[in-house]
Amino acid sequence: MAVRVAVAGASGYAGGEVLRLLLSHPGVEIGALTGNSNAGQLLGSLQPHLVPLAGRTLEATTPEVLAGQGRPHDVVFLALPHGQSAAVAAQLGEDVLVVDMGADHRLKDAADWDRFYGAPHAGTWPYGLPELPGGRAALAGAKRIAVPGCFPTAVSLALFPAYQAGLAEPEAVIVAATGTSGAGKALKPHLLGSEVMGTVTPYGVGGVHRHTPEMVQNLSPLAGQRVSVSFTANLVPMPRGILANCSAKALPGVTAEALRAAYEKAYADEPFVRLLPEGQWPTTQSVYGSNAVHLQVVHDPSAQRIIAISAIDNLTKGTAGGAVQSMNIALGLPEELGLSTIGVAP
Amino acid sequence: MAVRVAVAGASGYAGGEVLRLLLSHPGVEIGALTGNSNAGQLLGSLQPHLVPLAGRTLEATTPEVLAGQGRPHDVVFLALPHGQSAAVAAQLGEDVLVVDMGADHRLKDAADWDRFYGAPHAGTWPYGLPELPGGRAALAGAKRIAVPGCFPTAVSLALFPAYQAGLAEPEAVIVAATGTSGAGKALKPHLLGSEVMGTVTPYGVGGVHRHTPEMVQNLSPLAGQRVSVSFTANLVPMPRGILANCSAKALPGVTAEALRAAYEKAYADEPFVRLLPEGQWPTTQSVYGSNAVHLQVVHDPSAQRIIAISAIDNLTKGTAGGAVQSMNIALGLPEELGLSTIGVAP
Amino acid sequence: MAVRVAVAGASGYAGGEVLRLLLSHPGVEIGALTGNSNAGQLLGSLQPHLVPLAGRTLEATTPEVLAGQGRPHDVVFLALPHGQSAAVAAQLGEDVLVVDMGADHRLKDAADWDRFYGAPHAGTWPYGLPELPGGRAALAGAKRIAVPGCFPTAVSLALFPAYQAGLAEPEAVIVAATGTSGAGKALKPHLLGSEVMGTVTPYGVGGVHRHTPEMVQNLSPLAGQRVSVSFTANLVPMPRGILANCSAKALPGVTAEALRAAYEKAYADEPFVRLLPEGQWPTTQSVYGSNAVHLQVVHDPSAQRIIAISAIDNLTKGTAGGAVQSMNIALGLPEELGLSTIGVAP
Amino acid sequence: MAVRVAVAGASGYAGGEVLRLLLSHPGVEIGALTGNSNAGQLLGSLQPHLVPLAGRTLEATTPEVLAGQGRPHDVVFLALPHGQSAAVAAQLGEDVLVVDMGADHRLKDAADWDRFYGAPHAGTWPYGLPELPGGRAALAGAKRIAVPGCFPTAVSLALFPAYQAGLAEPEAVIVAATGTSGAGKALKPHLLGSEVMGTVTPYGVGGVHRHTPEMVQNLSPLAGQRVSVSFTANLVPMPRGILANCSAKALPGVTAEALRAAYEKAYADEPFVRLLPEGQWPTTQSVYGSNAVHLQVVHDPSAQRIIAISAIDNLTKGTAGGAVQSMNIALGLPEELGLSTIGVAP
Repeated sequence: MAVRVAVAGASGYAGGEVLRLLLSHPGVEIGALTGNSNAGQLLGSLQPHLVPLAGRTLEATTPEVLAGQGRPHDVVFLALPHGQSAAVAAQLGEDVLVVDMGADHRLKDAADWDRFYGAPHAGTWPYGLPELPGGRAALAGAKRIAVPGCFPTAVSLALFPAYQAGLAEPEAVIVAATGTSGAGKALKPHLLGSEVMGTVTPYGVGGVHRHTPEMVQNLSPLAGQRVSVSFTANLVPMPRGILANCSAKALPGVTAEALRAAYEKAYADEPFVRLLPEGQWPTTQSVYGSNAVHLQVVHDPSAQRIIAISAIDNLTKGTAGGAVQSMNIALGLPEELGLSTIGVAP
Repeated sequence: MAVRVAVAGASGYAGGEVLRLLLSHPGVEIGALTGNSNAGQLLGSLQPHLVPLAGRTLEATTPEVLAGQGRPHDVVFLALPHGQSAAVAAQLGEDVLVVDMGADHRLKDAADWDRFYGAPHAGTWPYGLPELPGGRAALAGAKRIAVPGCFPTAVSLALFPAYQAGLAEPEAVIVAATGTSGAGKALKPHLLGSEVMGTVTPYGVGGVHRHTPEMVQNLSPLAGQRVSVSFTANLVPMPRGILANCSAKALPGVTAEALRAAYEKAYADEPFVRLLPEGQWPTTQSVYGSNAVHLQVVHDPSAQRIIAISAIDNLTKGTAGGAVQSMNIALGLPEELGLSTIGVAP
Repeated sequence: MAVRVAVAGASGYAGGEVLRLLLSHPGVEIGALTGNSNAGQLLGSLQPHLVPLAGRTLEATTPEVLAGQGRPHDVVFLALPHGQSAAVAAQLGEDVLVVDMGADHRLKDAADWDRFYGAPHAGTWPYGLPELPGGRAALAGAKRIAVPGCFPTAVSLALFPAYQAGLAEPEAVIVAATGTSGAGKALKPHLLGSEVMGTVTPYGVGGVHRHTPEMVQNLSPLAGQRVSVSFTANLVPMPRGILANCSAKALPGVTAEALRAAYEKAYADEPFVRLLPEGQWPTTQSVYGSNAVHLQVVHDPSAQRIIAISAIDNLTKGTAGGAVQSMNIALGLPEELGLSTIGVAP
Repeated sequence: MAVRVAVAGASGYAGGEVLRLLLSHPGVEIGALTGNSNAGQLLGSLQPHLVPLAGRTLEATTPEVLAGQGRPHDVVFLALPHGQSAAVAAQLGEDVLVVDMGADHRLKDAADWDRFYGAPHAGTWPYGLPELPGGRAALAGAKRIAVPGCFPTAVSLALFPAYQAGLAEPEAVIVAATGTSGAGKALKPHLLGSEVMGTVTPYGVGGVHRHTPEMVQNLSPLAGQRVSVSFTANLVPMPRGILANCSAKALPGVTAEALRAAYEKAYADEPFVRLLPEGQWPTTQSVYGSNAVHLQVVHDPSAQRIIAISAIDNLTKGTAGGAVQSMNIALGLPEELGLSTIGVAP
């Protein structure tokens, strides 16, 4: 019997992407779709690419609608602005699987949350990055899931094998390029097409990007000590994709062979992570619209650094794909259901 | 039992796209993949987005390889340069379904072929545009299929209902914008990224574009007389997509209601064509990677013209998706198998 | 002695572009810069590319500021929303040259204005398209100038020679691609980078685009009868540029030679219009940031149509460059002062 | 009397850009233009944006043509493939100023040259980066100039004040995004528009990028010790621009104030370098087509790193603008002649 799913925030990019994936998911039936300012509008005018749902009308995001109004939902995806998920989840009952694509329940440290988001901490939920050591166990049977941020997904997968294998110093330097959809549909001047095309714009520089503490949280346990992260984001002229340039100083004695072996071991059985053949580098185009992570790593003997570069689609593996993958695990479904490693290129 | 399929020209854009679709086709098994200059290379280095085929090695395009070498192919897709399909098909036997994504077998008039392609005519095959009146009947059971050109697909679907309903004068004026993948992977200076981004480039202007006679061929029978076509192509800075701006003078007495009714009737039962609600216009983003055709039509009473605009993905519905759709019909499979109306947006 | 110039609306795209040009104009001194919601802000934060003006503060758009507050302005450029120019100009005195880059004073027919803009007509000012027959005479000594719309500039220059020489039927069909800056800095969802990149979006289709009556107004006198215009605009993924695909049925007996001769004659002495050598087509990249118009025209004997294609930079020749060119003429300065035919490419 | 200038390699991007700048240079007369495979063609077909030179014919790159054939050139700009400059310069006489926009004469260490370029070292010429300490003195009166690489320009200007002031550890980590014109007009598959748009591609990763030793060479003297450089380049979908994300660990005790002061002091009198107000970050759009360098620097106390980000136009300040600026200094002309800090935006 199909899993019945609702999506709160169906008019935005994360909401649209999770619907795109769920439409191809053989075990899912799409229930209520909600919006706020867009309630009452047809999805066909807001998300014209989702043809099979074009005739659906957005409802208001109320507890009754999300509960299912007589036909209960098994899963509710939340694609809401930061700070709104906890209140909505509290109204949904503990037997409903709530998958939060927002940031509210990612950070364990309330002080971090307060410092970067300036709001009361709503608690921590099981973390939806199955590829991290122990990741799947944390999700099995879960009724609440915090989907990771898009940058932490790309960065954590690029660097954790080096830390897990004890090869890198605990100071990571990351510069990640991202497409514009990562910023959502917010009407901000710097996101206008005229401002975005033909330019690269750095933002969140100098330790202030909200995804920084999440990277520290993911990497530190594997390093056995606190990993400091210097993170810089660059907005580049494309709609989708993250390319994460990650590096850390190699510990003395690290060899190219040991480095390669650590990554091959870490990802030997991962269905969505592809460690590319040596000499081939990831591109965001190759993972466009897919749940795949492409990855390469090298040792630069001159600078004595490990350079790991990953490419993901920020909306798919970085948000909605990661959400569906985590839902599959939580529900005991095959992990790859409704997801693909095949990108749309060129 | 799965249909076994080979693709000749697997390293190009059309070849890559047909493989992307076939990988999601539940009734297909992918057999030999061939290239010419790229024979011997791994597909993973040429089409890195096709992860499940990354370990496959391209073979040379020989009759033996395409025949299947002991494990016969049921279908062979040809993604070859113009003029090469006939010779290859001749070697394949009449029981193999050959789907030609090149131009060789589209035109009925040998003089047109000679004038626009400067080569001997190789004959005409059943035409792979099922949505045209009589289109499906021509494909059922066919063993040879000529996949339409990308522009003729977009233009014919935008205009034929107006001609079929006797609403338009037989002089069509078309300006179509296309993404760069329509030009293939050819190494030409004007296709370099630096030349393409930030610019619009007209080409094939003044009656010389090779797709013009194919449009005339498609529209004239429905008009009951020769339809002249003025066609201009514009290369625009995006990888995929065609937006076809089509117009023709309205015959006296044509009303907006009659026009709308003609299109609603023509496309009432078409699985891939979506006539948008009034007031909503197609965009190429909405059909990105999908087999859908988005369409809108209006009557401009001031200029007395019918304006019909269609959007397709040139690589999907315009090439590889149309090819798979036609294959499904020829083989008696459900027409929508392996195809989707869901675009990848934004 | 330098001409002292103020710019009202200096934080927008048209205002920024006129400042970019004026900074290189040897006869101009830049006076007051005004904005509305941005008054009080540094120009360096709003227009970071205008380094020499980075320290200037935007003032409010008041009659006193525009008058010059003790150091009178000789010229005031208005880059204001539609409907605001007349009231501002009325406060400026008749000896100040007012150059309106908005639409308010372009149309002669009050009914057209009412129909397309839904507001009372503010009267007609001398029209800033010097290349039209009689264009320069209308501007010499003028104290009020209406700068043409960007599309009417591109279209009128592409088609008027054909009408002036009596070669074309009075029914023009135009499809023009434009970069996103033509829509200004308005915060509208469809102008977000994520929505614009990778897509073509038609708008103003079916006779409703506001620039249509302006094209009719420009072409009809040269044709000696009313020219109907079917105009479709396509938004394409680039910040700047217009490529106007214009066509009309050729009158019987028109030859390619006569057509070429008409255009050569029309533009023999024009400093900014370049009729390209036969076989070469305009691209928007070639006129990026310049005041040049690139143009080509052919006769399609099969469709019996004249096809003329022009490329301009919508912000330069299409708005701010045309404004400066007209200012030069009105003030009796050399027409090319501060303007260039050299584009920024690639 | 005008300086007479020849350009060898006038059909490429660097050659085209130097011509664009020279056309606006009041002290220059443009002499011979040469190409290799393009000799005999009109510049108007190869560089259609350079309208004033459209009628010029490319000549072959021979000593006689470059010498001037009766009307001697005072300056010859070389925009040639690596390895060809030395032989050409040897034929030009010591009284001609030769400005080499290629890499041949940048590196002081022959071993570095051999390792990164795999060719015999052609010697070192005065280095065309006037903003480096001692940079102008090295260029005054020079007859041979090696124009820096585009990445070393952006990176050296971003980091040298930190090293000069003794604030940073000698291990720099750099990730720089670049537009596609940096790769030239070479016909390589990965530079096709279809491959470039919508994607970010890393290259030269792990210590193998040819610009790495040039960065080490520029920064080490200021640090008083060898600075190691970890450099990663990312190709992003835009024609022009470099955004260089540079960082190094801060030495103990470094404060935000000391850091800011070091940069303010270093660039107080530089005409082309703009240290942005605190809180404002550089974008490549702001320097599009200009010779400006936009720069910002912060101290991240959490990661204990200095982050400096610079934006340049790779073709202007990064190549041809730097070349013209250096020519001006060498000839004793005002340094800013023919150059601008005003970008073309949006």
